[in-house]
Amino acid sequence: MSTVANPANIFWHDNLVGKTEREKLLNQQGCVVWITGLSGSGKSTIACSLGREFQARGKLSYILDGDNLRHGLNKNLGFSAESRAENIRRTGEVAKLFADAGLICIASLISPYRKDRDACRVLLPDKKFIEVFLNMPLQLCEERDPKGLYKLARAGKIKGFTGIDDPYEPPLNCEIEIQQKDGLVPAPNEMAGQVVSYMEDRGFLEA
Amino acid sequence: MSTVANPANIFWHDNLVGKTEREKLLNQQGCVVWITGLSGSGKSTIACSLGREFQARGKLSYILDGDNLRHGLNKNLGFSAESRAENIRRTGEVAKLFADAGLICIASLISPYRKDRDACRVLLPDKKFIEVFLNMPLQLCEERDPKGLYKLARAGKIKGFTGIDDPYEPPLNCEIEIQQKDGLVPAPNEMAGQVVSYMEDRGFLEA
Repeated sequence: MSTVANPANIFWHDNLVGKTEREKLLNQQGCVVWITGLSGSGKSTIACSLGREFQARGKLSYILDGDNLRHGLNKNLGFSAESRAENIRRTGEVAKLFADAGLICIASLISPYRKDRDACRVLLPDKKFIEVFLNMPLQLCEERDPKGLYKLARAGKIKGFTGIDDPYEPPLNCEIEIQQKDGLVPAPNEMAGQVVSYMEDRGFLEA
Repeated sequence: MSTVANPANIFWHDNLVGKTEREKLLNQQGCVVWITGLSGSGKSTIACSLGREFQARGKLSYILDGDNLRHGLNKNLGFSAESRAENIRRTGEVAKLFADAGLICIASLISPYRKDRDACRVLLPDKKFIEVFLNMPLQLCEERDPKGLYKLARAGKIKGFTGIDDPYEPPLNCEIEIQQKDGLVPAPNEMAGQVVSYMEDRGFLEA
């Protein structure tokens, strides 16, 4: 009786070429590597390093970068709590599609709230959601400040900035946590290697 | 000074593994096959047939089905003109990501408004947007009525139904138009073959 979505009128279409066939073609298993951490913690760096490593092994991966998505799919969203949640929700749904397509989808977003990340995890059962927590000290991220955003946040020119005046909720049960060792940040390929080893051990890199 | 997106604070991250590398890995060219037409015109059928044909040729494709997306990415959208536009916009943005990932992305949506489809086309320059118009008569679609939706629309139980009380704007410059021949609907593999031939001729099926 209305123009509002009625789930009863939206049908599900099964595609006859399924995930299994696509995974065989690619000789890998579709999944999501979800990289979370503060701004400046090195998410994009490890994402790119991972992408190169997969390509070198002949595996197909694709990076969903939070900032890049805000230029396209999520360009109509701001940074209120509600918009951030919708930003993560859409990214999670797209990541799920990529995993279903057979790709190793690398999502790289601050994704500060546990609830929002966990909602994405639920979309990908059977351990296909690999949460990677880049656990770097705020002080380090702020010293790096690659985009100059911490400076703006400290000056009050950006409100609701994660780590400054908005919380970052660390994962409670992530698959992989990356930290400093003896006060040193691991090299990008070392961080990526930690993720690749995890995936190799669990058979993600073959069909 | 606010929580609203400030484009100046959203950076673009270039990934060092680019589209070209992914296309080489897959030996194909990322693109979008956008199938538009009335409900019941056979969009899902040709999409599935295309998917099987690509798989048989060792090519990686993925179907974005309008109805399926409304269970996930677009589940917070209704059927108002504004929501329909946003539904198409998001689908176009996701299709663009899949094409960038190197896949042949098959988008299957009624997508009734020319303006919305053309906005998606703009996202994919260099002839990477292949619009396929399933030009089947309303009467035929209504006779088929695979989901029983025309019946509901005629009974006034669904408002704003494309072809009944909401317009379908046919493409003016689509790449491929599929019609009845001598009063007969082509077989699904024949329709798919028309699309595959088009793509083969233009080199999409090799890197």
